[in-house]
Amino acid sequence: MQEYRIVGKSIPRTDSLGKVTGEALYTADLKLPKMLVAKVLRSPYPHARILHIDTSRAERLPGVKAVVTGFDGHGVKWGVFKYTQDHAMLPTDKVRYVGEDVAAVAAVDEETALEALELIRVEYEPLPAVFDPEEAMREGAPLIHEEYPRNINIHVHIEVGDVDRAFREAYLVREDTFRASGEAYAMMEPYAVVVHYQNGYLDLWMPNAGPHVRAKALSNLLKIPLNRVRVRRIAIGGAFGGRSEVQPADFAAALLSIKTERPVKLVLTREENATSIRQVHDMVATIKTGVKRDGTIVAKEFKVIYDGGAYSSTGPIATSIPYYVYEETYRFPNVRYDGYRVFTNKGIRGMYGCHGRAFLAGNEVQLDMIAEELGIDPVEMRLKNGLRAGEETATRSKIISSGFEEAVLRAAERSSWKEKRGKLPRGQGIGMGCVAIMCGFPMGFRSGSSCYVKLNDDGQATIVTGVVDNGQGNESMMVQIASEILGIPVEDINLVNADTEVTNLDPGAYSQAAAFVGGNAVRLACEDAKRQILAIASDKLGVPAEELELRDRMVISKKDPSKKMPLRWVVREAFFMGRPVMGIGAYMPKIDFEREWVKNPYGQMAGTFSFGASVAEVRVDEETGLVRIEQFVAAHDCGNPINPMAVEGQMEGSVAQAGVATVMEECRWHEGFLLNPDLLEYKVPLACDMPQIEPIIVRSHDPEGPFGAKEGGLTIRMNAHSAVAAALYNALGVPLKELPATPDRVLEAIEKGKGGRR
Amino acid sequence: MQEYRIVGKSIPRTDSLGKVTGEALYTADLKLPKMLVAKVLRSPYPHARILHIDTSRAERLPGVKAVVTGFDGHGVKWGVFKYTQDHAMLPTDKVRYVGEDVAAVAAVDEETALEALELIRVEYEPLPAVFDPEEAMREGAPLIHEEYPRNINIHVHIEVGDVDRAFREAYLVREDTFRASGEAYAMMEPYAVVVHYQNGYLDLWMPNAGPHVRAKALSNLLKIPLNRVRVRRIAIGGAFGGRSEVQPADFAAALLSIKTERPVKLVLTREENATSIRQVHDMVATIKTGVKRDGTIVAKEFKVIYDGGAYSSTGPIATSIPYYVYEETYRFPNVRYDGYRVFTNKGIRGMYGCHGRAFLAGNEVQLDMIAEELGIDPVEMRLKNGLRAGEETATRSKIISSGFEEAVLRAAERSSWKEKRGKLPRGQGIGMGCVAIMCGFPMGFRSGSSCYVKLNDDGQATIVTGVVDNGQGNESMMVQIASEILGIPVEDINLVNADTEVTNLDPGAYSQAAAFVGGNAVRLACEDAKRQILAIASDKLGVPAEELELRDRMVISKKDPSKKMPLRWVVREAFFMGRPVMGIGAYMPKIDFEREWVKNPYGQMAGTFSFGASVAEVRVDEETGLVRIEQFVAAHDCGNPINPMAVEGQMEGSVAQAGVATVMEECRWHEGFLLNPDLLEYKVPLACDMPQIEPIIVRSHDPEGPFGAKEGGLTIRMNAHSAVAAALYNALGVPLKELPATPDRVLEAIEKGKGGRR
Repeated sequence: MQEYRIVGKSIPRTDSLGKVTGEALYTADLKLPKMLVAKVLRSPYPHARILHIDTSRAERLPGVKAVVTGFDGHGVKWGVFKYTQDHAMLPTDKVRYVGEDVAAVAAVDEETALEALELIRVEYEPLPAVFDPEEAMREGAPLIHEEYPRNINIHVHIEVGDVDRAFREAYLVREDTFRASGEAYAMMEPYAVVVHYQNGYLDLWMPNAGPHVRAKALSNLLKIPLNRVRVRRIAIGGAFGGRSEVQPADFAAALLSIKTERPVKLVLTREENATSIRQVHDMVATIKTGVKRDGTIVAKEFKVIYDGGAYSSTGPIATSIPYYVYEETYRFPNVRYDGYRVFTNKGIRGMYGCHGRAFLAGNEVQLDMIAEELGIDPVEMRLKNGLRAGEETATRSKIISSGFEEAVLRAAERSSWKEKRGKLPRGQGIGMGCVAIMCGFPMGFRSGSSCYVKLNDDGQATIVTGVVDNGQGNESMMVQIASEILGIPVEDINLVNADTEVTNLDPGAYSQAAAFVGGNAVRLACEDAKRQILAIASDKLGVPAEELELRDRMVISKKDPSKKMPLRWVVREAFFMGRPVMGIGAYMPKIDFEREWVKNPYGQMAGTFSFGASVAEVRVDEETGLVRIEQFVAAHDCGNPINPMAVEGQMEGSVAQAGVATVMEECRWHEGFLLNPDLLEYKVPLACDMPQIEPIIVRSHDPEGPFGAKEGGLTIRMNAHSAVAAALYNALGVPLKELPATPDRVLEAIEKGKGGRR
Repeated sequence: MQEYRIVGKSIPRTDSLGKVTGEALYTADLKLPKMLVAKVLRSPYPHARILHIDTSRAERLPGVKAVVTGFDGHGVKWGVFKYTQDHAMLPTDKVRYVGEDVAAVAAVDEETALEALELIRVEYEPLPAVFDPEEAMREGAPLIHEEYPRNINIHVHIEVGDVDRAFREAYLVREDTFRASGEAYAMMEPYAVVVHYQNGYLDLWMPNAGPHVRAKALSNLLKIPLNRVRVRRIAIGGAFGGRSEVQPADFAAALLSIKTERPVKLVLTREENATSIRQVHDMVATIKTGVKRDGTIVAKEFKVIYDGGAYSSTGPIATSIPYYVYEETYRFPNVRYDGYRVFTNKGIRGMYGCHGRAFLAGNEVQLDMIAEELGIDPVEMRLKNGLRAGEETATRSKIISSGFEEAVLRAAERSSWKEKRGKLPRGQGIGMGCVAIMCGFPMGFRSGSSCYVKLNDDGQATIVTGVVDNGQGNESMMVQIASEILGIPVEDINLVNADTEVTNLDPGAYSQAAAFVGGNAVRLACEDAKRQILAIASDKLGVPAEELELRDRMVISKKDPSKKMPLRWVVREAFFMGRPVMGIGAYMPKIDFEREWVKNPYGQMAGTFSFGASVAEVRVDEETGLVRIEQFVAAHDCGNPINPMAVEGQMEGSVAQAGVATVMEECRWHEGFLLNPDLLEYKVPLACDMPQIEPIIVRSHDPEGPFGAKEGGLTIRMNAHSAVAAALYNALGVPLKELPATPDRVLEAIEKGKGGRR
């Protein structure tokens, strides 16, 4: 195995210091001359026609500089795809959920802005509303968007092989339905944006998952040429999917800035952050599995209903992602998937780092139920069905590297699976969840990344990349890759990133593309620069370029280390020669661009896939129904970790957000009102809730990944709920068919399971 | 002559709109969270030993966050060259001029900072001072720096040919001494800097002439690695040389920010701007010229004494620049130059856009005196001696293009020279001044520029270049070059420039390098991008790349215009292919790097030279001595103007700053105190003082320049004073041997000239 100098080393992330010292500048910290404060008026109804909006009194309030409504826009609607453009950011026809943005005010201070909101008169005609997706699909239910019959936003149908025949021929068939409530993103930094429009240029500061995608959306919505919309890098306080898409907040703040030609800051409250940005889909998943006598899966059929809330958002993608990550894990010769995303009069649902717990945990729990019936160990069951390198997924994505087997075995070993499974005392259980995930998925010409690197006159380097860091350590990773190739320490490298003006297109922090796609672009650019450096040094030293290497800020002969010169000298020589060292690199993953999320869901989905297996050990208090996760082993094939500490950090965060959340996190609703929009009522895991975590890094050395690297951390986020649900099934003897595993549900399951396994 | 679509067109500068609407953000407008205000304590003595500085009372004042003196630095001294590093930014040994920076305070507001200054106690021991450079050179004069005997800072000696023999053989020899007072830069925006130091990174916002040079200086002075010093682009309110170098203001603000880890803003007052930044050298030039009977110059000898003020600053360069621009104009087979820059206890003198009026105007007036003696027309005299393309300057710089002859002839024609010279009524006169100037001079590996261009997915482009715009229109020019090559309108082009983080080395706005050097780099980068575009389009259209052209946002076949596709499509295709269009270009002018300003002043100085001839027509009120410049014709060989309007704007500014200033601008001193540091007492030309200006653009189509372009505007700035002085000689019949031509000096000359020409 090749050893690298800096790649693979656990180093503090380059952005850590500013964050721990409090010096990192967040959007809310920004001050610009003449900046105004914005506030948003929101819908009090889940569904109502807007008859009239009167902003005149608010406009006359001293200190108010502008009031905007949807009538100030161009009527362009937002949607990820052309066929889902249904979200008018600020609606003019009707409101579709409680908390929907209706009007916005920019004033000299917050108090004035809030006072002005009270002066806006909106006349509504309340309409019948629908809150349950299954009800919403029935004929005669109130229609939320006229153009979507039965409120069905998206229907994804995937069919491979002869499913019905396979079921007929199966030794054993099970069908179960699993449900899960929606969750909140609950990122620590509420949604925030600062917009400054002047001279036809729109400048935006906001943490976001994809600056180029955001700029494009705003360019379309505001009809401003793309090169006059600049989304800038700024520190981020968590995203988890909650900053993936353009938001009414961006749009409203932009309209206000355009109207005033002054900078406008809009920071949402904690409650607004919960109700009016995005939430996680509630879900009902009916899963039917057919197996052979030996546990081999021969048929799968899924019907999944996603509660989409009021608008399409990332619906076309969200409606199949849980399925994909599952088919990337296991071999399905015959499979049928029907995913329905349905509109309801609730907040909009979007992508989430651990999207699909009903589906994924349901599948894994059902696999354990089948294993139990067959008398096969769940670990065995997974090893038998897991995809290996060289195989293809059901929808024809080739797997080029897989650490699945190693992850399963090492997780089992570290968790003392053999010693514990079936041998734990009453109320305790151990369970495994597995998943694979795509690294980079098709986003058209935005699927690739590119990088420009320049060598500065002190022998330091600046790398310019679109890669954005939403807290994962992506920035640090890019610097480590450059450091490895250029042979200079990380402190000699400046990173310019996530700014639409100077960086090139990049997929953004979607689809786990940063390490695999962005990292490859940085690698290629630095290798280009290295070639230029070695060519000059070769001339100067009289040593062939292939005998030279870069290390310790020097160009050194590998054969005769006395032949060397400082990198700085070479760089200066290059400047003198009039050909400064400037490297260019670009990487496009080998994906099938004919593939389409809804209309043609077949073909290569991603350049590669990463794998993971989690084992949770739980203890249930049978009196109170309280669940404690005691131990968590997470084994993750990330190809080769660029920064193991960062990958482990991601794995630990995943255990909290997906694993521990499985016993507590849910959004509770009543008639379209979110009952727990704050952090007092909405429970997120605290330090005291955390299990002991054992992160295991599995190295499959991906042939395409930069230094063998793939995605780091998300597989654990997508299987941690499965491991907890499987462990609960093991502890209780009956499957919990609804998540999260809150005490009421656990007690109900215990009741149902009386006379069960123990 | 080749016609271009956008190069050569007069378009509004891309930065104009923000400036005329007031939306451009200047350094003083910047607000950063927790920003402090800085003020500087200055020396009240022209020369004094610092015995003790007590800042303790100031530090205890509530609201004061830090006080710094030179003891807070590392003792590093600044100088442009190693052998002139004598400026300790904040001195700890002694002060050398009134207004020198001694201590600085950062406080929560200006009032507190000012109050704190009064609480700092500095104990001084006054020392004998010297204010006149000729006195300062005498043995026994007070020494300002121990290491410079006779206070001689720099002595430049240039000798070519056999000067003494040539004088002996000359038909006519004249020797005259000319003097000129120093001037103020008087830029409208006072010197300003905002510094933010955090986590080891120093961020600076300030208008400046060369961000890379500034960052390097601060890196050295503060011992912060170069890649942790970032100088950013910000709007500029005039420079003219006054923002060329690192200043004590930068250093003091940086120390304060380092001490507080908070942003610090320092904006100088108008008076501080005059006394404590830089001024223009006072000068005494003794000029000896030998000619043949026909007016051919055969020998030149110069002795020039420059009053340097207290520190070296750009001394090594300033001590010969007037000579060089003159030898680049005329053929000198035998020449001896001795330039002495001498320290005095006055403010520091630096580079200026029209540096050297005593020397240049003196030479041109003396040429007219010789012409008069020989009975040759001054125009004839200039044509006879002017350098042509293919010739070499005395110090061996080859001239590759020259519009000298055309400039002289067209200026004469447009000014009705033949009709007026010798025929104007009493008190009126007409005179010509000529000069050539280097485009890019040796700054080591910083002499070149490079550019990175990326094509964005809407077919727009972003160009990244170090080129800085100090008001000349450089930014606009780079955009026009890119527009021409890429066939897209200027509004489709974003410019990222003058920021040390993302741009590569560039000489900066020194040495007239922007158009010639920076423009060439932009041209080459765009041509590189164009090649990539045409290669892809050629495949798609089935048309050979050489048959394709870029225009109107399309790739079009030159032979069959029906074969075309939008540039946007090609760019997107490139993204799909995983090789986005990214162009790289670099240009290093063909200069002699062995050349050194003082130690080896021979060899190719610049890539090319631009030429100009000015004709001024003046009217003198013989009662009051007031001079009015009535008409000014400026003919300028700028190779080929990228934006004629911008070049004409530069020419007009030059007439004001150099031409009209010749009758009014001077710094007046008394015992080391500047008597006129404000704009009430220091007279700058107002609209009512301006002559009618006729700008003439001469096109020599430089073979190396981008689209034939060379420097635009500075030749006029360097000869406008000569034209005015020559016109005054013509009006008065006696030469004015001291500038500016204020009424007192004019009246004295009239007195002296009684019985003169008229």
